[in-house]
Amino acid sequence: MLPEATPDLQEQAINTIRTLSIDAVQKANSGHPGLPMGAAAMAFALWTQHLRFNPANPHWSNRDRFVLSAGHGSMLLYSLLYLTGYDVTLDDIKHFRQWGSKTPGHPEYGMTPGVETTTGPLGQGAANSVGLALAESFLASHFNREDFPLVDHYTYALVGDGDLMEGVSAEAASLAGTWGLGKLIWLYDSNHITLDGRAEMTFTEDVAARFRAYGWHVQTVDEGNDVAAVSAAITAAKAVSDKPSLIVIHTVIGYGSPHKGGTHEAHGSPLGADEIKLVKEFYGWPQEDFYVPDAVRAYYGQAKTVGATLEAGWNDLFAHFAAQHPDDAAAFQRAQRGKLPIGWDADIPLFTPDKKQATRNASGVVLNAIAKHIPTMIGGDADLAGSTKTLLKGAPNTGPANPGQRNVRFGVREHAMGAIVNGLDLHGGIIKPYSATFLTFSDYMRPAIRLGALMEIGPIYVFTHDSIALGEDGPTHQPVEHVMSLRLIPHLHVFRPADANETAATWKTMMTLKHPSATAFTRQDLPVLTGEGIGGVEAIHAGVARGGYVLQGEGAPDVILIGTGSEVHIAVEAAAALAAEGIKARVVSLPCWELFEAQDADYRDSVLPPAVTARVSIEAGVTLGWQKWVGAQGEAIGIDHFGASAPYQQLYEEFGLTGAAVVAAAKRVMGK
Amino acid sequence: MLPEATPDLQEQAINTIRTLSIDAVQKANSGHPGLPMGAAAMAFALWTQHLRFNPANPHWSNRDRFVLSAGHGSMLLYSLLYLTGYDVTLDDIKHFRQWGSKTPGHPEYGMTPGVETTTGPLGQGAANSVGLALAESFLASHFNREDFPLVDHYTYALVGDGDLMEGVSAEAASLAGTWGLGKLIWLYDSNHITLDGRAEMTFTEDVAARFRAYGWHVQTVDEGNDVAAVSAAITAAKAVSDKPSLIVIHTVIGYGSPHKGGTHEAHGSPLGADEIKLVKEFYGWPQEDFYVPDAVRAYYGQAKTVGATLEAGWNDLFAHFAAQHPDDAAAFQRAQRGKLPIGWDADIPLFTPDKKQATRNASGVVLNAIAKHIPTMIGGDADLAGSTKTLLKGAPNTGPANPGQRNVRFGVREHAMGAIVNGLDLHGGIIKPYSATFLTFSDYMRPAIRLGALMEIGPIYVFTHDSIALGEDGPTHQPVEHVMSLRLIPHLHVFRPADANETAATWKTMMTLKHPSATAFTRQDLPVLTGEGIGGVEAIHAGVARGGYVLQGEGAPDVILIGTGSEVHIAVEAAAALAAEGIKARVVSLPCWELFEAQDADYRDSVLPPAVTARVSIEAGVTLGWQKWVGAQGEAIGIDHFGASAPYQQLYEEFGLTGAAVVAAAKRVMGK
Repeated sequence: MLPEATPDLQEQAINTIRTLSIDAVQKANSGHPGLPMGAAAMAFALWTQHLRFNPANPHWSNRDRFVLSAGHGSMLLYSLLYLTGYDVTLDDIKHFRQWGSKTPGHPEYGMTPGVETTTGPLGQGAANSVGLALAESFLASHFNREDFPLVDHYTYALVGDGDLMEGVSAEAASLAGTWGLGKLIWLYDSNHITLDGRAEMTFTEDVAARFRAYGWHVQTVDEGNDVAAVSAAITAAKAVSDKPSLIVIHTVIGYGSPHKGGTHEAHGSPLGADEIKLVKEFYGWPQEDFYVPDAVRAYYGQAKTVGATLEAGWNDLFAHFAAQHPDDAAAFQRAQRGKLPIGWDADIPLFTPDKKQATRNASGVVLNAIAKHIPTMIGGDADLAGSTKTLLKGAPNTGPANPGQRNVRFGVREHAMGAIVNGLDLHGGIIKPYSATFLTFSDYMRPAIRLGALMEIGPIYVFTHDSIALGEDGPTHQPVEHVMSLRLIPHLHVFRPADANETAATWKTMMTLKHPSATAFTRQDLPVLTGEGIGGVEAIHAGVARGGYVLQGEGAPDVILIGTGSEVHIAVEAAAALAAEGIKARVVSLPCWELFEAQDADYRDSVLPPAVTARVSIEAGVTLGWQKWVGAQGEAIGIDHFGASAPYQQLYEEFGLTGAAVVAAAKRVMGK
Repeated sequence: MLPEATPDLQEQAINTIRTLSIDAVQKANSGHPGLPMGAAAMAFALWTQHLRFNPANPHWSNRDRFVLSAGHGSMLLYSLLYLTGYDVTLDDIKHFRQWGSKTPGHPEYGMTPGVETTTGPLGQGAANSVGLALAESFLASHFNREDFPLVDHYTYALVGDGDLMEGVSAEAASLAGTWGLGKLIWLYDSNHITLDGRAEMTFTEDVAARFRAYGWHVQTVDEGNDVAAVSAAITAAKAVSDKPSLIVIHTVIGYGSPHKGGTHEAHGSPLGADEIKLVKEFYGWPQEDFYVPDAVRAYYGQAKTVGATLEAGWNDLFAHFAAQHPDDAAAFQRAQRGKLPIGWDADIPLFTPDKKQATRNASGVVLNAIAKHIPTMIGGDADLAGSTKTLLKGAPNTGPANPGQRNVRFGVREHAMGAIVNGLDLHGGIIKPYSATFLTFSDYMRPAIRLGALMEIGPIYVFTHDSIALGEDGPTHQPVEHVMSLRLIPHLHVFRPADANETAATWKTMMTLKHPSATAFTRQDLPVLTGEGIGGVEAIHAGVARGGYVLQGEGAPDVILIGTGSEVHIAVEAAAALAAEGIKARVVSLPCWELFEAQDADYRDSVLPPAVTARVSIEAGVTLGWQKWVGAQGEAIGIDHFGASAPYQQLYEEFGLTGAAVVAAAKRVMGK
């Protein structure tokens, strides 16, 4: 959206991106110069002739989104952010990849203004961009009114060969095609080179044909340095409103490097001083490090004025919208700020013990009770909604050419689901997005969960069928190590509630967390806890919010029984048996370790008194990790092997997950 | 390969598969009847007219492989195994999904004769089949001689909509196309229904066009019950020798069910007694449960004779081959048995301390030293061989239409790599297959690793760049939780060696393990341990083989310092500092927890004397799990947060992974 530059200025502006990238990588003695050198021209075309953004406000809600999915080319993005006037300085560029800098090795969300998502693990950014475009589509359909296109922006991603080899991008592209996300545009930097050599060694498919098969609009630009051709292709892509667009742009990696250009040697290492000298000669560039011609600085500098004008225009639109639709405007602003509306939790039920129920069922009830108050809460499942119980009642499904519905149907594509849900969250305005599948398939989406945690964004990853208690489907479907392995991921909050009321409290807590959450809900029915003796259901809610609490057992205990999820009921059963023998057992429910650890020591010690070292834990999963709570004198009862295909009650018996086993262990740890 | 049946007998034979499946699911009150009902005809065509197998010897090396990737249709496979004379009885069928039965909910390798791989998690079987076909191609190129096609079989997979939605199958299909695996044939049961409803809701892409884009030969059969059409397509697919084949076969899920056929209600639940009555009427079938007409029994029963003849013919071929090529025959048999040749470890070097080196480098040296003695050891990397150091020197790469080379180049497709390597192992004859990528990307292949562990097969998953010490690439690439999360997977053996000599011992140990292994090798250089004071490098080798050992510190210690990998050297540094203060610290290296746990208590206690509760661990990863070894009184030093982008030495300082921190912790745990 900048005025057109003369050909000479254009070339200088492009070479500035290249040389800044080269110099920063060289100074850091680490990084990837090849992509910025090859893709600078397409980035220039996009950023100066199409992308709508305001450097002064990276959070302007209606900005176009740009995702550098090939995150190793981070210097391309940092150069653009610096040159167009974001809060990134030349000094930041000079501190590329250094401790505390704004310019880490790969783009990190929250670290650098203008970075829309954390990328580097290939394919993730591409899939995030589908989520960003889906959010745009949903919010547009929800908020826009005649003459008021409040939400109306494009989502661009720059993807490389590696991104397109990854399965997660394939899954996401298939969904984008199904949904007909017309405002999603991928620029494919096809440089025929991967880290290890020529892409042709491993990547011979016809990418354009593949994307056409997904229902995408596909164009090819043969000369990636031809700014006009790239720009024309973007213009054509924008004009296609019913299909996402792929623009295959042929480039030369490390363009301008006489010895390394067009080879994998330009991919992942500094070029070296000698080669840089030759490259700058080829560009007709001064040898000075981090050189930015004044004319180039002035040219890119216009982005601030242009951006301010763009946002001002939108603000004006919004002011008029607010005048005519004050309630909608308030709702829009609240959603943008991620605020929950007053009364959002008013309909969360208190469950009564008259009927056993699975926590997945309770979850479905609670989700619906919450979502009915929060119109921009959307999410969905990987072809298992009938089992995960996560459909919003009465809401439409996404489907062919039908994006932006509240029930997002991902098909059997867990990995893309995770990355798309991250994209929904990153967009802003969606509170909160959620995904759903069986817990065992958390493995399929683990790279996306990790990035959600690293970015400290807030999606909810719902998992059901959380243990061997799913029974007959057998060990392939029975999680054993998954709950613990999710607990290992920093920032992720893992909830394994023991009943319907803990499930309600779990949802209530997750909705207010800054960090992402993962759940482990049961397939099987469980008794409903009443909180009798501790203050009722409200005490259960309070206990879940603190991550762990004393469920039963007054006074100083002889032994502490700690459980999570369905096994809390086994601990309760064991406590009763021990009581009959005159042994005072305290039962502690520990649904969320991360929250419990965040409590002060007084609270933690009140739940798990350090003096009581006779402790037994029970959880239908691996025991490694439980030593943290049961200590050296305690015993952890669990399953340190894979499950089996059989009715679940029998599995619990065969695997020794029984009240009798807890009783026996309790006596052992008490030295009886 | 059975004689052709009359149309009437054919129909009965197909309906027998259907009704056995229906009855077994109904009796178990759990399972998936729809797929067997819809796909019985194509399975009949394949199994009776093409598939070469010997029910009496499921391990015959030259059998065609059949993978039921859509593993939820397990009753289809069990019915065929029973009917064709494998060691699966009608009683086994009647105990479908029951404790201890041969017929678990999803097919499990090692549990049921004739099951080639464990399936259920979608997409995995499809990707395994690429590995099976790659193994065939490699072994054929290696062992076959003129007139002696010792290795010459097809690999078939039956895949469903769900399989083809998963990214892992997309990655694998792209590779199969690149490699031109002409003897790989996928039968795509296109029934337009997934668990949750009509596939069209989430799956609108043109699958045939997508596979053509991958370089596959693609055919379509419009009527999936037309045995002749399916058979003709298979014949045509077999005739295409330079491309893998996809046959899109349109079917009706739950065929024959008046109320549930063609809908998702036939997918994942028993049909119910009333509906079954109607289905059997539709088939013109007696209402008797588990009914097998005598003619059908006799017809399928011929598979035993046919199979015996096929294998006898091959045995005859092999005998002639052995007469002419005795050494090759011995090598072939040894590889089939998974035996390592004598002297396989003769060239594993003892590393000397004159030069620091990264364990990834040492790994590359050792891998080459081993592989040169084992001609059927093949494997490769996900576009990171330059970094993982896993290329076999002098060996060719796989590439376009060039399968069956020792250096398998997977491109940026970690998930398919894992599943394909599993397939290489499952085939037999490949000792041992290995994969390689950065440790952080173990998340991308985790579902495949889990299945390798569940199957108790033996591939080696090499991971390098094992901690924050990879430095500048930043937190996206820095594993923090990965080593511990791999330790949680049952059967998987995780090795994190401390230096070049522990790395050599790691490789030596992994080669002899029945179970799969995963490694965590460093990017950064490390000092080389000499084993001085404990018996030299041989003691290090012996220690690694036991999973953990005393690296230094004679006599009863005041405090035990436990480390793995690069942090062992920090423990050594701390021990020296403590010694200077008169504190006796023992340094324990614990490279493989699983092996250490498998030692007897005497050995474990000799390394970690229970009386010494003053213990400190150090590992550049999450601390959750370390409580197991340091106990309640100990301290675990690690990183319970994500990393950062900076030179690694600075990260170690900033994150407190230092000798000084260990010293301070040692004093704390000693109460000083």
